[in-house]
Amino acid sequence: MKKYSFKNDYSEGAHPLILQKLMETNLEQAIGYGEDDYCKEASALIKKELQKDSAIHFVSGGTQANLIVISSILRPYESVIAAESGHIAVHETGAIEATGHKINTIPTTNGKITTAQIDTVLKTHTDEHMVKPKMVYISNSTEVGSVYNKAELTEIYTFCKANNLILFVDGARLASALTSTKCDLTLADLANLTDVFYIGGTKNGALLGEAIVINNSTLDENFRYNIKQKGGMLAKGRLIGIQFSELFKNNLFFELGKHANTMANKLAEEISNKGYDFLTEPSSNQIFPILPNYKIEELQQDFEFYSWQKIDDNNSAVRLVTSWATPEEKVLEFINKI
Amino acid sequence: MKKYSFKNDYSEGAHPLILQKLMETNLEQAIGYGEDDYCKEASALIKKELQKDSAIHFVSGGTQANLIVISSILRPYESVIAAESGHIAVHETGAIEATGHKINTIPTTNGKITTAQIDTVLKTHTDEHMVKPKMVYISNSTEVGSVYNKAELTEIYTFCKANNLILFVDGARLASALTSTKCDLTLADLANLTDVFYIGGTKNGALLGEAIVINNSTLDENFRYNIKQKGGMLAKGRLIGIQFSELFKNNLFFELGKHANTMANKLAEEISNKGYDFLTEPSSNQIFPILPNYKIEELQQDFEFYSWQKIDDNNSAVRLVTSWATPEEKVLEFINKI
Amino acid sequence: MKKYSFKNDYSEGAHPLILQKLMETNLEQAIGYGEDDYCKEASALIKKELQKDSAIHFVSGGTQANLIVISSILRPYESVIAAESGHIAVHETGAIEATGHKINTIPTTNGKITTAQIDTVLKTHTDEHMVKPKMVYISNSTEVGSVYNKAELTEIYTFCKANNLILFVDGARLASALTSTKCDLTLADLANLTDVFYIGGTKNGALLGEAIVINNSTLDENFRYNIKQKGGMLAKGRLIGIQFSELFKNNLFFELGKHANTMANKLAEEISNKGYDFLTEPSSNQIFPILPNYKIEELQQDFEFYSWQKIDDNNSAVRLVTSWATPEEKVLEFINKI
Amino acid sequence: MKKYSFKNDYSEGAHPLILQKLMETNLEQAIGYGEDDYCKEASALIKKELQKDSAIHFVSGGTQANLIVISSILRPYESVIAAESGHIAVHETGAIEATGHKINTIPTTNGKITTAQIDTVLKTHTDEHMVKPKMVYISNSTEVGSVYNKAELTEIYTFCKANNLILFVDGARLASALTSTKCDLTLADLANLTDVFYIGGTKNGALLGEAIVINNSTLDENFRYNIKQKGGMLAKGRLIGIQFSELFKNNLFFELGKHANTMANKLAEEISNKGYDFLTEPSSNQIFPILPNYKIEELQQDFEFYSWQKIDDNNSAVRLVTSWATPEEKVLEFINKI
Repeated sequence: MKKYSFKNDYSEGAHPLILQKLMETNLEQAIGYGEDDYCKEASALIKKELQKDSAIHFVSGGTQANLIVISSILRPYESVIAAESGHIAVHETGAIEATGHKINTIPTTNGKITTAQIDTVLKTHTDEHMVKPKMVYISNSTEVGSVYNKAELTEIYTFCKANNLILFVDGARLASALTSTKCDLTLADLANLTDVFYIGGTKNGALLGEAIVINNSTLDENFRYNIKQKGGMLAKGRLIGIQFSELFKNNLFFELGKHANTMANKLAEEISNKGYDFLTEPSSNQIFPILPNYKIEELQQDFEFYSWQKIDDNNSAVRLVTSWATPEEKVLEFINKI
Repeated sequence: MKKYSFKNDYSEGAHPLILQKLMETNLEQAIGYGEDDYCKEASALIKKELQKDSAIHFVSGGTQANLIVISSILRPYESVIAAESGHIAVHETGAIEATGHKINTIPTTNGKITTAQIDTVLKTHTDEHMVKPKMVYISNSTEVGSVYNKAELTEIYTFCKANNLILFVDGARLASALTSTKCDLTLADLANLTDVFYIGGTKNGALLGEAIVINNSTLDENFRYNIKQKGGMLAKGRLIGIQFSELFKNNLFFELGKHANTMANKLAEEISNKGYDFLTEPSSNQIFPILPNYKIEELQQDFEFYSWQKIDDNNSAVRLVTSWATPEEKVLEFINKI
Repeated sequence: MKKYSFKNDYSEGAHPLILQKLMETNLEQAIGYGEDDYCKEASALIKKELQKDSAIHFVSGGTQANLIVISSILRPYESVIAAESGHIAVHETGAIEATGHKINTIPTTNGKITTAQIDTVLKTHTDEHMVKPKMVYISNSTEVGSVYNKAELTEIYTFCKANNLILFVDGARLASALTSTKCDLTLADLANLTDVFYIGGTKNGALLGEAIVINNSTLDENFRYNIKQKGGMLAKGRLIGIQFSELFKNNLFFELGKHANTMANKLAEEISNKGYDFLTEPSSNQIFPILPNYKIEELQQDFEFYSWQKIDDNNSAVRLVTSWATPEEKVLEFINKI
Repeated sequence: MKKYSFKNDYSEGAHPLILQKLMETNLEQAIGYGEDDYCKEASALIKKELQKDSAIHFVSGGTQANLIVISSILRPYESVIAAESGHIAVHETGAIEATGHKINTIPTTNGKITTAQIDTVLKTHTDEHMVKPKMVYISNSTEVGSVYNKAELTEIYTFCKANNLILFVDGARLASALTSTKCDLTLADLANLTDVFYIGGTKNGALLGEAIVINNSTLDENFRYNIKQKGGMLAKGRLIGIQFSELFKNNLFFELGKHANTMANKLAEEISNKGYDFLTEPSSNQIFPILPNYKIEELQQDFEFYSWQKIDDNNSAVRLVTSWATPEEKVLEFINKI
């Protein structure tokens, strides 16, 4: 890859502190399958942020986190409600259905769903000839870069509790959400306003790995059986433990998310200054400017990024993604070319 | 862990050359999901050993490799035949059944199955009221340390082809098998004598990762869909590509397997010299000496290892596992204590 | 149930000729699981209508027919395309997802989907991060009473073949469709314009039972294994064989469908004459007149039927279903009350 | 079929009283899906026998009953313990595995399992790398004609409760078990000594249908969703309701079972008198005499029955099954030919 890529936030390896720690600890012997001291340390560090004694489990990737959490909770006839644009609904090759469960999808313009929409799903699922919606899945930040703030999450969680629904937040890009200027949530809020969520490592400076956080303790019973059965339990669990330990020392996790956001904001501001509009309001490390097609072609000679959606015959929305590793100079180069 | 552990072959991190390469390439941008140049390089290096243009796919772990391969091949009513001691039958928390398929198990004393036993399974599954056995699963080396040699594998493969069965070899410990003095197989043989197999990285010096090798091209159609659906496709696929590239340069993969075997042989010889017997003939990096219980207790004050099976009131078989990282001095220390 | 019911077409038992035949043959011994002479006779009678040597399999119900057919054909990552109002998408409690497969739904106003809509689904499913649509499911007649005619079915089938898709027609109410004045299809057309379809018995005068017709012989391999595994194979398979034999003697199957349609037409005409409109054009044995709410309340004092959909504050659509057993006098009584 | 068949107990149609009632009620309108008055009446009649307010659900067949009950109770990583000869383990085409669950099988000589054997399974399943056994499945009568008596069932149930296991009894041939001279159990005992069981109709005079009885009310939550999803819910549920109503009026269910047993006993006594032995002790309506091969060939010229198992070069065990409909004269004819 010669051109600089704004295609995604998993193009690079890991933050150097992580690699350094892997080096230092490499020949230590550790017990396997996530029961080593590094996983324990990482759990303790995360719980400190949560201000709650939630259960923490590490798995190798986001699709795994989603399919393990959802299939472990739902009974065979229960379904999960998600945005039509939700990762589980679109980009996991039917992983949830492969565990036997329907996804009830809700159309959105900005990737976010409302309690009124959830309520409509409940009201149209009334008897045993239909699935029984039992869980709400949202992503924060969403697949189109928007974020739920504390008021919105509180409303959804309150609705879920009133309606006997489980709330699950996909945090593949949680670092970017939590450090967004549009989002006033903390990890401690997540611990109080969800039944279960996961903290994404892969898209925030780790080689791989996501931390599932189970706040509703009834959902944690025998949870490790599910991880093992679905192939999400690494023999060398230390690999994820060490990474999350590093991420949750000295605020690194948040610093990395913030850097990605800062780079995205810089892009967004300048693009906006040039008079261009956006598909969704820039809020996190994914932005969706609408550019003339000729301009997109020009930019693609120097940069890689996805053309996202046709707007009209002359204009399209593109997706630009920044990461913990995006150098400011590349952002400036891009801005100069617009 | 203060005591030295012979519990397994995944106690340490990765071979130093692997970590070094991860460091060197860390900030390069690479495309995701296993389509990067390192995965391509690793595939090319493996194919060179195979002397065949098989399809290579990298996944994050052994249970994943097994469940993805098996569920991708079998139709809903088809089953897989395996030894009662087979990893899929015992130690994957029902991962295969969770994809909908029965395992027809065969009792063994040494972890190895015969064509006569497979034939019996076929002969007792005769109509649509029973599952239809369609695949044979064997591990090499097996879960109890034994190995299949070329004559044995040839016989099984020939039987499978004559009976329209798929042969799948679980190679979680393939490096140890291929470098065992009891085994005359090469990777090129595996390519010719199986429909599909996987090459274990996790238990032979990688942080994680297994390479699925599909020799029967009809089984490769849309295979990546299966990997993605089951959560086995890492966003940062480079992580596995880089590791297998390093393992398959300069014979490292085989050197590491050989070292583990050499250490195990040394243990076995001395234990034998002291007059002790074994549960199964020492052949690879897992050995199962039968020791007096008092001796086991003594040894466990200095070393960690699993007590495997009660033999009689005074004696038990233990499992000792060596790895690419086992230092000779620890082996000598253990020998001294026997 | 004191009030006469227009709620559905499965309120009564079986056509008297069926019961009579069950009586006559009751103490004959027959081999089980659908291999008896009555099943053979029924198959032969159906094939005569098909003018094709398709494979015929009998199962106990419509949800079974759907889940068995779909799960037997799709590979794990493949999906089925259906109308949002399709029975499999709404009213089978996630039966298809429970076998592991996503349903890609298409919004419709009249229950019918078009090739343009199918094409859009294909165009938005482009790589292994998404499911691979492989089958198109349509119902004829549809869940809202509309019918596909020969031109429409030909277009869909041609599109499917051009795009390597399987076409499956749910014929729970096929008798009503085939005898509708709006539909010019025959069973022989179905045999040529679908890969697989099923002929509904339950909703056309049988006690239970549906006949799956597989026209694409590659889909028939080991099909009985699927029926058995999913619990769709009756020990006393004769029960379904006898019923379908009777239905396909002397045109009974079509006579019963026609009677249901005639009753529905009579209702529709008079309702139309009184100046009321319909949610969808009356075409088969389900009609959806839009009536004032006060009128609906009045009618419900004498008849049972479902209120289907709110139209505005004063009017709602109701669903009236007629059957093979609907007496003309009840239709006239209803008409008098409007 | 010209020869008289002792192959199974589902060769004939239904008991005449059942057919007569189907005739009488045929044109009544009834609500669908098992909520009609006949299902209610049948439930009430069964509960009277149970002397307990258990939940009753009707499904169309035995494989359905088994797969619905088991999949509704187990969490994804949980397994069911069964005899190696258990119907779910052998003759349901992997129906249980198809819902995602492993069956832990126990070898037996007479089809019956003991608490000591169950205990061994529990003791060898100790952590999250293995499935978690959660249910015990037994058949009464078993697949080889033996029966569990009250003392045995009490022991198993007590063990299950002490070990947090669910006890499920497959009663496909429960009528024969309950009326066996070797069995002192009543339906009321079953209600107290199992969590869930089913009462077989198909093999005791019904056209089809089994009654699932849930005694442990926590297992009944939303149970109908499971029935619908798996395709076990007949639109014309009345068909099963009417049949079970008839069976549980005037002791018919027990009379039919008793008749089958009486016919089997008569066969067994005379075969024994002629000096022949049995594979398992004759106890119910399935018996397994060991006969010389030449004798078997002779008998098969006049009767149909299964050759079950080779005993030695000259002798084999055969299976003779009697039913509610077996005429005494056919039994006498058979006896004469031995």
